[in-house]
Amino acid sequence: MHALASDLKLCGRPAGRVLEEIERFHGFPAPGVVIGAFMVDWAQEVIGPRVEADAIVETLRCLPDAVQLFTPCTLGNGWMKVLDWDRFALTLYDRATRRGYRVWLDAGKTAAHPAIHDWFLKRVPKDALPLEILLGRILEARRAVLSCRSVIVTDFLRRPKKDSIAICPGCGEAFDPRAGDCCKGCLRGGYFKLDSA
Amino acid sequence: MHALASDLKLCGRPAGRVLEEIERFHGFPAPGVVIGAFMVDWAQEVIGPRVEADAIVETLRCLPDAVQLFTPCTLGNGWMKVLDWDRFALTLYDRATRRGYRVWLDAGKTAAHPAIHDWFLKRVPKDALPLEILLGRILEARRAVLSCRSVIVTDFLRRPKKDSIAICPGCGEAFDPRAGDCCKGCLRGGYFKLDSA
Repeated sequence: MHALASDLKLCGRPAGRVLEEIERFHGFPAPGVVIGAFMVDWAQEVIGPRVEADAIVETLRCLPDAVQLFTPCTLGNGWMKVLDWDRFALTLYDRATRRGYRVWLDAGKTAAHPAIHDWFLKRVPKDALPLEILLGRILEARRAVLSCRSVIVTDFLRRPKKDSIAICPGCGEAFDPRAGDCCKGCLRGGYFKLDSA
Repeated sequence: MHALASDLKLCGRPAGRVLEEIERFHGFPAPGVVIGAFMVDWAQEVIGPRVEADAIVETLRCLPDAVQLFTPCTLGNGWMKVLDWDRFALTLYDRATRRGYRVWLDAGKTAAHPAIHDWFLKRVPKDALPLEILLGRILEARRAVLSCRSVIVTDFLRRPKKDSIAICPGCGEAFDPRAGDCCKGCLRGGYFKLDSA
């Protein structure tokens, strides 16, 4: 555990445990997931403990894992939606009122934190910036590199419920008939061929 | 823990622990995630312990959580790709050889397991099929409701690496310039408005 993490609490647990949970789930203490823990921590603090929040994440990279580890929202339970927009931002919001908080890694603020800035904007090759150094800077900077705004969510609010299931005439598998006459896999063409070896 | 789970091993751990891990991560022992654990278990067995497999999941519902819990693949680390195709299927494959195994919940086979069939094809309302009963049937059926085929993956093999980062002229946030002149959020229109309350 990084020495700086010893007295810090994040998402309701000691920062050392946050780093361990990230390593176990994500494979290593990725800078993006550690920053994500600070982002979740800030959004949780401002939305308050009494709100059972849904999450929207604006990138596939790293950030979904912070949300899945440190909130009750996962991809599979439908409380976390993930947009492939490549913005390092997340929103936690109250699904009853649609009010919530969007937190993002702010390139204007990282400018004052060169290691984080260089990593975020990919200004240096990976091996020029050792992970341990970068993690130290992230644990020092905490929320200083983030911004937070209160927002009202207007889209991606609920996932559609499946009303009925059909069997695809193409592949013979169950699918949601709102996709069309056959499943999306058969419509689009699959991602595999059968291995006859 | 369900009595049937006491002597069963799944994904390298006792089935009771599998159910606990699902409950902690997903919120409750969802039938789809429990079936997902059997699917991952089968795919892992046939691909063998020496392959560090990537995953492709063909639905957003439930199944991504089984993969994230019981393999090293997560959405945020990029080893799991998720297709919104609404097919209850997953593939684990060797990223070096592209060979792997696709496992799916097979509607032809669930026909012999009425509780699972009714749940899978949404033939009965949720409250007519108590969770405890359905979980019992799933733990009895094990792989009898699944099919498995060896496949060669031909698409969605790698995620593109980001080469450079730009600042979006619309929102001022960092984004991947391959999206265009501004970020996908600004291109498409956001999912929130600022809360001035």
